[in-house]
Amino acid sequence: VDPGAELDALTATGSSATPPATVAGLAERELIERIARRLPPAPGWLLVGIGDDAAVVEPERNRVEVLTVDALVEGVHFDRAFVPPDAIGYRALAVNLSDLAAMGAAPRLALLSIALPPALPLADFDGVIDGLARLAGNERLHVAGGNLTRSPGPLLIDVTMIGTLKRRQALTRGGASPGDVIYVSGTVGTAAAGLQMLRTSHARGGGTLPAIAGVCIDRYLHPEPRVRLGTLLARNRAVSAAIDLSDGLADGVHRIAEASGVGATIDAEALPIEPAARAWFEARGLDPVNEAICGGDDYELLVTVPSRLGRRLAAAVGTREPGLTRIGVCTKERGAVLLRTAAGERALPPAAFGHFR
Amino acid sequence: VDPGAELDALTATGSSATPPATVAGLAERELIERIARRLPPAPGWLLVGIGDDAAVVEPERNRVEVLTVDALVEGVHFDRAFVPPDAIGYRALAVNLSDLAAMGAAPRLALLSIALPPALPLADFDGVIDGLARLAGNERLHVAGGNLTRSPGPLLIDVTMIGTLKRRQALTRGGASPGDVIYVSGTVGTAAAGLQMLRTSHARGGGTLPAIAGVCIDRYLHPEPRVRLGTLLARNRAVSAAIDLSDGLADGVHRIAEASGVGATIDAEALPIEPAARAWFEARGLDPVNEAICGGDDYELLVTVPSRLGRRLAAAVGTREPGLTRIGVCTKERGAVLLRTAAGERALPPAAFGHFR
Repeated sequence: VDPGAELDALTATGSSATPPATVAGLAERELIERIARRLPPAPGWLLVGIGDDAAVVEPERNRVEVLTVDALVEGVHFDRAFVPPDAIGYRALAVNLSDLAAMGAAPRLALLSIALPPALPLADFDGVIDGLARLAGNERLHVAGGNLTRSPGPLLIDVTMIGTLKRRQALTRGGASPGDVIYVSGTVGTAAAGLQMLRTSHARGGGTLPAIAGVCIDRYLHPEPRVRLGTLLARNRAVSAAIDLSDGLADGVHRIAEASGVGATIDAEALPIEPAARAWFEARGLDPVNEAICGGDDYELLVTVPSRLGRRLAAAVGTREPGLTRIGVCTKERGAVLLRTAAGERALPPAAFGHFR
Repeated sequence: VDPGAELDALTATGSSATPPATVAGLAERELIERIARRLPPAPGWLLVGIGDDAAVVEPERNRVEVLTVDALVEGVHFDRAFVPPDAIGYRALAVNLSDLAAMGAAPRLALLSIALPPALPLADFDGVIDGLARLAGNERLHVAGGNLTRSPGPLLIDVTMIGTLKRRQALTRGGASPGDVIYVSGTVGTAAAGLQMLRTSHARGGGTLPAIAGVCIDRYLHPEPRVRLGTLLARNRAVSAAIDLSDGLADGVHRIAEASGVGATIDAEALPIEPAARAWFEARGLDPVNEAICGGDDYELLVTVPSRLGRRLAAAVGTREPGLTRIGVCTKERGAVLLRTAAGERALPPAAFGHFR
């Protein structure tokens, strides 16, 4: 017997003309049960799991803990009109996994705090949890507990995540020195192009996207947090500073430069812009370099490496995917963060995100 | 030089007729700085604190970790019209401290995730943080990191908290047996009366509350999480099950009964209803017992104790404040949760909270 089917039957009574069931029809505990049965079985170190006042966890031996929290807010970080529920749940975990990756930590557990608009269809709620559970399963991350509350406004998914790491292996933003080489993983601008494609398609009523759109849209909806790359870089110890590109490459470079007290010069020609994204930007009359450095949501890693350790880095990363591309260098002049193009050097734009206006 | 004054000057330019500064005037990092300087200095076990992708923490030796997350949402859990900013911040921490207390854990660290309406006055933002920092200081709890985001709707404060506990000392909901005596700490109904008083006063334009109101309003605005009592009960090991009364006494009894597979009978005459609350309810023609068992927000502890361990419990709790009052007993008939009054026994009302309607 599938208890889910019973709950569906309870809430979706009446004729087929009945509007779809919403989360308002269920009690909090019924929603928690729907979450719990979508999750993999609890590991032995989870001494008390979902359903009590709090979770009780055995810490991992000989490791320090890395803690992060990040929220996805409807209308700020996603638009339910064109982001399917599965992708909303997936991205809520991915942004936190990416923060752990930027520290070099291996994911261990998550707590979910979700504020639900009462009118949210139950199928959408299930979809959000499915997307989240799928990524958690892939990353061997366990959901140890959480909280559900009603929202009088947007859907909000807040995820707290804990990872582990050997002491003194944490990658921080503050360790870069002048002369360190700057690398970025994978490609940039891809998610930004994907978001523009989704918006354009939605505005046109759907179905009018070019064939190249797939890779960009998939990156926006299902970004791949660089967890394995991060843990590898932490063990390899060639990296002097690291950050993940949640708010775009320009923002990441500025933050590392500021935390480390250095300058930086980025080479526009070297940026690994996804070809499909470049084609999309050019077809719309946009400058691909500008879009790629200011666009967020790629969740790649930006790292700095002392030039004498370049060989050690290469030995570790080798030909693995995603590769690292050398895009620039740290400089002495604190705060001078520049973009070098064929036309000369200009200031790298400041962070496009971060304001509350 | 007070950097706060500088930021104020930056955002509050112009004549005195300028509307008050809002959070929309500041960048995320400026708001984070305002939080950081309101917090006590970081302890040695916080290896990387606020300002990087994630916090890095040295776990406490020979302890298990207790994790909880809880959100306060404007319009659901508080009304900014009559709950001052300081109390909003205080309560956001208190509800989580209360969850740790119910497990018997000592608080260690918190992560804050706040969704801010752009129009929130900066003075209110500071007030929220001040209320939160004050309670954190009292409880030796350290804020290790967090996240700020814009909210297109309500103010939302989500707090993740981690406490520690010796292995096998965690108090859970599931350990009660038939015959176990049920105790509650402090008084019940107090916060519910306080909320009614605040609403009444607000509806009348303020200033018309009786002199007895103070204790009830203060309980609603600044509930005292029973952290010391919880840790004492965990060490004492007389308690078989525990829960905190966030959603009211009736809800707590139902949850313990369900998790433990027992019934319960509560003695209405024995309930420690705050005299000021009783007077308020009676003056308004409300049944004090009904209000006291259904009202939430008291954040007292409800515990069960095998009758043979009553003396051990008394030896530990003694004459400490808040005292424990014996209010009922666990029974054999699973699910039979009753209220005994002078008029006879009736079903204890089900949880008033927990639905998303």
